[in-house]
Amino acid sequence: MKIDVLTLFPEMFAPVLSTSIIGRAIQNGILTINVYNIRDFAKNKHKQVDDYPYGGGHGMILAPQPLFDAIGHVLSGSNGYKSTVILMSPQGKVLNQEVARQLSQESHIVVVCGHYEGIDQRVIDRFVDLEISIGDYILTGGEIPAMVLIDCVARLVPGVLGNPESVKNESFSRGLLEYPQYTRPQEYEGYTVPEVLLSGNHREIERWRMKESLRNTFIKRPDLINEAELSPHEKELLREIRQELGVL
Amino acid sequence: MKIDVLTLFPEMFAPVLSTSIIGRAIQNGILTINVYNIRDFAKNKHKQVDDYPYGGGHGMILAPQPLFDAIGHVLSGSNGYKSTVILMSPQGKVLNQEVARQLSQESHIVVVCGHYEGIDQRVIDRFVDLEISIGDYILTGGEIPAMVLIDCVARLVPGVLGNPESVKNESFSRGLLEYPQYTRPQEYEGYTVPEVLLSGNHREIERWRMKESLRNTFIKRPDLINEAELSPHEKELLREIRQELGVL
Repeated sequence: MKIDVLTLFPEMFAPVLSTSIIGRAIQNGILTINVYNIRDFAKNKHKQVDDYPYGGGHGMILAPQPLFDAIGHVLSGSNGYKSTVILMSPQGKVLNQEVARQLSQESHIVVVCGHYEGIDQRVIDRFVDLEISIGDYILTGGEIPAMVLIDCVARLVPGVLGNPESVKNESFSRGLLEYPQYTRPQEYEGYTVPEVLLSGNHREIERWRMKESLRNTFIKRPDLINEAELSPHEKELLREIRQELGVL
Repeated sequence: MKIDVLTLFPEMFAPVLSTSIIGRAIQNGILTINVYNIRDFAKNKHKQVDDYPYGGGHGMILAPQPLFDAIGHVLSGSNGYKSTVILMSPQGKVLNQEVARQLSQESHIVVVCGHYEGIDQRVIDRFVDLEISIGDYILTGGEIPAMVLIDCVARLVPGVLGNPESVKNESFSRGLLEYPQYTRPQEYEGYTVPEVLLSGNHREIERWRMKESLRNTFIKRPDLINEAELSPHEKELLREIRQELGVL
């Protein structure tokens, strides 16, 4: 997969692209990520990229020319592959694991990071296939959201994570939150590990984990539980949890 | 406000802390952000921070000792101020603008970044006040989510943004998405600016912007519109939008 990032702050991306799993995938040639400075495409002599909004109002708007040229440039390098141009925007479709999974199957993604008060609408009308928001909160720019998108999508690209099991067993991919985890020592400052995890009884351990996963989800994110999709065993565990919590 | 970050990848934070608005707030002394490497607190000779999960399973779990000591260390530096310890976790409360606003009033926040498959539950039981998720998707670690949280919260701290108007007029603070923005030139590659924005008629411009803001929200995020909270004027505009779109 090839990802082109257009930003006014290219230096923000260096550590994310060199660290850990994403960095390794780039080294291994599974991912290609290029970061472009939108300012390099500005044709005016001061390399200005923004201007006042028509109709008045505070703040500066990213002007059409630098973005038309920057996006045009990276699209011309797509070698005929289909490209998807994404604008990081609080107005976008809210990212979730399913959106990420779909994007992980693309061959070329262009990620445009907004900044200042906004971006000229004509850039969106002309080029943008998809506006994506990472959540219902406001950030100072699109750079950190772009990192979120890249990290989330890239790790689903086949070969990026060493162990495909890791993808399967985690929060949301099963629709439930994870069970609590413990590692050595058995006791630390008075806090102990649940007995069952030390028992060696794998059936009991699995039952405990499923139940705690359900309990975690029931307490913290009940909106994620779809009772119609639970197995009879899971339904029975959920009944136990409700009784233990004293709720019906 | 003081923010202490505990992470295995401190180098990832450097560019975010030096760039743009957050960087300026740190220089101006409005924000203090310290980034600690959890590994520096490991007492074993190989500075190992993780271990296998009790009960079996793939992946490695962050062990109690380094985190107990790291969190204890930053809490001891809070000078008697109340501290809020936050774990970035897919299991947490989903961040939104209201959560960010509440956190922006704290004096000391400790942000713990998970990594590997998870973190020993006893760390959570002993220290964590709040688990926060930035959305329903999976990332390779808690570092990028921590950047999201820091950026989102820090910009709401009084004095961090130059113009407090900027906070008031943006998506979600009014509950609606923003209207489209345009800047010079009036025409670019055949794409033009809406006439009304060039009219100089401020009442018409304001009406257009309110309507487009409602239209944007109605089309992209109808879940954000609470009709009971709309003014009579806004309700009338929404009726017009529905008619124009041919929906009831």
